[in-house]
Amino acid sequence: MISLRDQAIFEAGIKLGALYHQFTGTPVSPESADSLERAIEESIRNQPYVESIKVRIDREVLKKNINRFGYAELNGLMLEVELLVKVGDVRVHARMRVVDGYPLMSLERVD
Amino acid sequence: MISLRDQAIFEAGIKLGALYHQFTGTPVSPESADSLERAIEESIRNQPYVESIKVRIDREVLKKNINRFGYAELNGLMLEVELLVKVGDVRVHARMRVVDGYPLMSLERVD
Amino acid sequence: MISLRDQAIFEAGIKLGALYHQFTGTPVSPESADSLERAIEESIRNQPYVESIKVRIDREVLKKNINRFGYAELNGLMLEVELLVKVGDVRVHARMRVVDGYPLMSLERVD
Amino acid sequence: MISLRDQAIFEAGIKLGALYHQFTGTPVSPESADSLERAIEESIRNQPYVESIKVRIDREVLKKNINRFGYAELNGLMLEVELLVKVGDVRVHARMRVVDGYPLMSLERVD
Repeated sequence: MISLRDQAIFEAGIKLGALYHQFTGTPVSPESADSLERAIEESIRNQPYVESIKVRIDREVLKKNINRFGYAELNGLMLEVELLVKVGDVRVHARMRVVDGYPLMSLERVD
Repeated sequence: MISLRDQAIFEAGIKLGALYHQFTGTPVSPESADSLERAIEESIRNQPYVESIKVRIDREVLKKNINRFGYAELNGLMLEVELLVKVGDVRVHARMRVVDGYPLMSLERVD
Repeated sequence: MISLRDQAIFEAGIKLGALYHQFTGTPVSPESADSLERAIEESIRNQPYVESIKVRIDREVLKKNINRFGYAELNGLMLEVELLVKVGDVRVHARMRVVDGYPLMSLERVD
Repeated sequence: MISLRDQAIFEAGIKLGALYHQFTGTPVSPESADSLERAIEESIRNQPYVESIKVRIDREVLKKNINRFGYAELNGLMLEVELLVKVGDVRVHARMRVVDGYPLMSLERVD
């Protein structure tokens, strides 16, 4: 049996996997990071069951990745995401952040 | 509390979201569909917790999408995916296929 | 011999190919199209030799592509791009737009 | 005036930009690198004006990028591409390779 809880968790995973592989590789600089954060949030918010999403590009990590042309490519080490997905009355809080030097997607809480 | 079942379902969602947004848009023709299917399978199989994956590009839908240059861009209407993810001793079967004219990712079974 | 003109034209091609394959597939709706246009422009403007870029997502085509969940995936039929690249004193105007039902990238003028 | 030479160079740029932004980010390991090289070659060969393409994933760089899960994400430092584009009777040889620690796309020769 697949429960609403199962479905909500599955949807949260889909969103984080999608976000990561759609947007990593995007050219980004300190000047353009704001508009990219907003565009990712507004884009993913279009998808079904997304209640809210907060995307932050870590400016310190971004600066360390800047090439001689003055920009970086968005990667997992720069990305912080907080996601709330709702299916039926089940709310799933998931996130992406760097843990022990690796970008990690994790389930935080299911209400 | 987050169970192994929850984690396994979350991982299955991540993989399908990642696959979709990494590979859609890829130029593909009847001649190159085989190598793309294999490359997607071998690529996603690298990811943690993936036990097996089968990717099929629907040749009929592919042909309908071919442009005047003789190729198409991979899209969700062409993609069929069967995925088995295992976390601890929990096995999650998930898939992607077209339902009612839309590509749909779904949880099939959790053992 | 590779001239500055050659290099500038090559760079213009790189930018359009990059933009297309980075951003197509992005979930987009009438509500989020503005932020995506701005983010694409600001992102590509980071790349070397880009003098200016204007991105427009055709709202009529977007609306025709909206799925039952209320959004579409960005595709070439929605995208209009005007790009100006400069290498040395050579300026290349290139664009992407739909011609005869297909997205077409073209060189417009070299000064 | 836009010459055949101009057009051929523009097309070569488009192909390299497209390849880079379509395929970087793909999960890859020493075991799956072969199938990914073939799939990229066969995919890009579908595009108009491509006469030949050779893609190599540098196994040494790949190994240095492997994460604790045993795979890496394809990036520009691993990618070597040799491309031949033909428009009319103009042949453009272009390539992508690492120069001074950065992935560089370059025009090699126009015949």
